[in-house]
Amino acid sequence: MSTAKGNPPSPDPAAVEEMARDATAWCAMHGLVVGDRAEQRSGTVPGVGLVHAPISLLPARLPESFWSQACELAPIFNELVDRVSLDGDFLQDSLSKTRQVDDFTSRLLEIHRKMMDINKEENIRLGLHRSDYMLDSETNSLLQIEMNTISVSFPGLCSLVTKLHRVLINQYGNLLCLDSKRIPENVASQQFAEALSRAWDEFNVDSAVVMMIVQPEERNMYDQYWIVKYLKESHGVTTIRKTLSEVEAESQVLPDGTLVVDGRTVAVVYFRAGYTPNDYPSEAEWSARLLMEQSSAVKCPSISYHLVGTKKIQQELAKPNVLERFLENKEEIAKLRQCFAGLWSLDDEEIVKSAIETPDLFVLKPQREGGGWFFNKNICVLFFSLLVDMLFIYREQHIRS
Amino acid sequence: MSTAKGNPPSPDPAAVEEMARDATAWCAMHGLVVGDRAEQRSGTVPGVGLVHAPISLLPARLPESFWSQACELAPIFNELVDRVSLDGDFLQDSLSKTRQVDDFTSRLLEIHRKMMDINKEENIRLGLHRSDYMLDSETNSLLQIEMNTISVSFPGLCSLVTKLHRVLINQYGNLLCLDSKRIPENVASQQFAEALSRAWDEFNVDSAVVMMIVQPEERNMYDQYWIVKYLKESHGVTTIRKTLSEVEAESQVLPDGTLVVDGRTVAVVYFRAGYTPNDYPSEAEWSARLLMEQSSAVKCPSISYHLVGTKKIQQELAKPNVLERFLENKEEIAKLRQCFAGLWSLDDEEIVKSAIETPDLFVLKPQREGGGWFFNKNICVLFFSLLVDMLFIYREQHIRS
Repeated sequence: MSTAKGNPPSPDPAAVEEMARDATAWCAMHGLVVGDRAEQRSGTVPGVGLVHAPISLLPARLPESFWSQACELAPIFNELVDRVSLDGDFLQDSLSKTRQVDDFTSRLLEIHRKMMDINKEENIRLGLHRSDYMLDSETNSLLQIEMNTISVSFPGLCSLVTKLHRVLINQYGNLLCLDSKRIPENVASQQFAEALSRAWDEFNVDSAVVMMIVQPEERNMYDQYWIVKYLKESHGVTTIRKTLSEVEAESQVLPDGTLVVDGRTVAVVYFRAGYTPNDYPSEAEWSARLLMEQSSAVKCPSISYHLVGTKKIQQELAKPNVLERFLENKEEIAKLRQCFAGLWSLDDEEIVKSAIETPDLFVLKPQREGGGWFFNKNICVLFFSLLVDMLFIYREQHIRS
Repeated sequence: MSTAKGNPPSPDPAAVEEMARDATAWCAMHGLVVGDRAEQRSGTVPGVGLVHAPISLLPARLPESFWSQACELAPIFNELVDRVSLDGDFLQDSLSKTRQVDDFTSRLLEIHRKMMDINKEENIRLGLHRSDYMLDSETNSLLQIEMNTISVSFPGLCSLVTKLHRVLINQYGNLLCLDSKRIPENVASQQFAEALSRAWDEFNVDSAVVMMIVQPEERNMYDQYWIVKYLKESHGVTTIRKTLSEVEAESQVLPDGTLVVDGRTVAVVYFRAGYTPNDYPSEAEWSARLLMEQSSAVKCPSISYHLVGTKKIQQELAKPNVLERFLENKEEIAKLRQCFAGLWSLDDEEIVKSAIETPDLFVLKPQREGGGWFFNKNICVLFFSLLVDMLFIYREQHIRS
C-alpha cells in the first residue's frame, strides 16, 4: 500500500483530471451533493441548485492503530457524555463563568436550570456524537480536538464518500498502488437512522414521528435526507422537518407531556439546528426550545447533552481528577487522558503569552459548535478583538511536558 | 386502482406539495438529474449545476393490454429495422427525393453509398431503439409516432423514474388509491449496458473500449453516465467519451480495420451525438463519421440503421405491400400495421388541405431525429415557412377510413 517514503506515487495530471471527472459524475449520480450558494433557492427547495459535495479524491492516510484507538475511544466518550449530563450541578458550576460573557450559553443554562428545578428526568437518552481528532506528528499520537454532541453533520454524505473512494481506488488503484480493501467500512448514515429508530421504538407510539429541527435555509439538506430515507425504508419511521419558529407556531405539550406538532405526536426531536445563536433570532425560537425540552419526547440531544459538548466542559474534564468523578474504570480513564490535547482558556496569562510567541503551536476555538478554527497568525490578531472566552488546544503538550 | 371514473382521486394541495418536495429530494439523492442551463459549465463539467430531471409525480395511466401490445411489438420492429438496413437499394431509393432537399440526409446517404460501393459488411449489428407511441382515444388504439434508431435518450434516467414512482406511491398510495405493484419493471439502463457489453463480447478484444460519441455540451450527461456505470460495474467494460471532432483528431483505422482512438482499440461506437446537422459544424465531423463507419468497430447504430430511423422510411414502410418485402410472418405484419398511424409528406395536396382545415387532427414532424413536434395551429403557420419535406401523422385514420 505504500512506497519507500510511505506515500503513494503521484499519478500523471491527465489521470488526475480523469479521476476528478469520474468522481464528480459519481457524486451527481449517487446523491453526494450539497446546495450551491450560487443558486438562491438551493437552501430551501430540494432538487435545485445542486453541486457535488466538497471531497478529497483519495482518503487520508491513517495508520490502523490510530483507527482502532479512535474506535475504542468512542463508546467511552459516549458513556462519559451521559454520566456528565446527569450531573446538573457540575454543568451549572462549570459554565457559571461562561454564562456571564456568553448570552447563548446563558440561555441554554437557563433552560437546563428550569429542568433541574422540576426534576425533569430523561429516561430515554439519545446522543449522536462525533469526536474530531488530529494526528500529532511530533508525538505520533491521536489527539482529540473536540466532541460534538449536537447537530453532527455529514453522517449521510460520509458513507457515500467511502463508497466513492472505493470506486476510484478500484478503478485507478494500480496507478496509485492503493488497495480499496484497506478503506474501513462506513455506514454512519444507516447507524444514525438505526439509533433514531431505537429511540423511536423505546418511545413506543406507533403513529409518532421523528421531528428534525432544521434551519430555514440549509444547503446540507441531502446529508439530512439520507438519514430520513433510511429511517423510512429500513425502519418504517416517518420524519417531519420543522424550523424552530415552525415548532413555536405549530406545537403544544399535552398534560401528559406528549409533544404534538401540527397534529402529530413526536417521539424524537433530532436537532440539526439550534446549536448556534443565529438559530435563535427571536424569543419564539427559545420558546420552542424550552417547550420541546419540557415534553416527554426524546431529545437528540437533551439540553444536558448539548451543554456537555461545550469546550468549557471539555476543558474541565481535562483537569486532574475530574474524569474520576464520572468514570470508575481506571484503564478507560487512562485511554481518554492519553488523547486529551492541552486546553486553556484566555484566563491563563502565561498561555496567552506563549501563544502569541509561538502561534504555530496553538489553535483557537470558539466556545460553541459550528464556530470554525483559527490558526497561527490569526490567533495574534484575534487575541485583541475577541471578548468571549475561547480555548486553546495545544498541539505539542507531550513534547513540552 | 381506480375510482368510479377510472381516475385516481385528487389529493389535497398540501399533500401534493409534500410529495413534490419528497420527489425532488429523491431525484437529488439518486442521480435523477440533468445539467441546469442556468449554470454555464453544467454541459461540460460533471457534478456542477445540477437540477432534478423534469419528471411527472405519478406514472401515466396505460391500460395493461396496450403495454403488452407495445412489448410484443418491440422485437418485431427491431427485426424490421435490421432487415431494412440490409437492403441498401431500398434505403437509397426511398431517400432519393429527400436528399435533394435535405443536405444532412444527403451526407448520410453519401456515407451509406460509399459503404455499399466497398461491400462493407456489418457482421455484428447493434441497435438501441425507442419506439414512441400515442394512445388514440377516439379509436382506443396504440399508434406508433416514430421509431428512434440513434442516440436514444433517457434509458439511464427512466429506470430511476420508475423507482421514484414506486417510492412515492408506496408513501402516498393510500391517499391516491394507487398500488405500486402495478408499475411495470424498468431496467432500461442495465439492458442498454448489457446490449453494449454483448457487442463488446462479440468484438472479442479484451483491452478494447466502448466509445460514446457525445456533443461538446451535454446537459443530459448523467443519463449517459448511468450506462457507463453499469457497463463498468456489471460487465467490466470501460467507456471513453469523445466528440466527433476529437475522434477526427485522435483516431486512425489500421489496415485490418481496427479503429484506434487516442491509443485505445474501440470495440463499439455508441452514438449519443451525430443525429442532427448541428453536430457537424465542419467537414472534420463528417470525416470522423466516415472513418468510424469504415472501421471494423461495431457501430450503434451503423449508417444503415441510422437511415432506417428516418421518417421517410417510416412512411415508405407504411405503404401497402412494403412490409411484406422484409418480413414473412403475416401475423407479425398485421400487428405492425395495426399500430401504424397515417403518414403523409407535404407532397400530398389533399392532405395538406385537410390539415389546414382541421389542424387538431394532425401533428407535423421534421424528417430527422431530435426535431420536436408541431401541433395544431402551428401547423398552419409552418406550412408556409418550411421548405424541407416533413411528415404528418394523422391521429384519426381509423375513424376516417
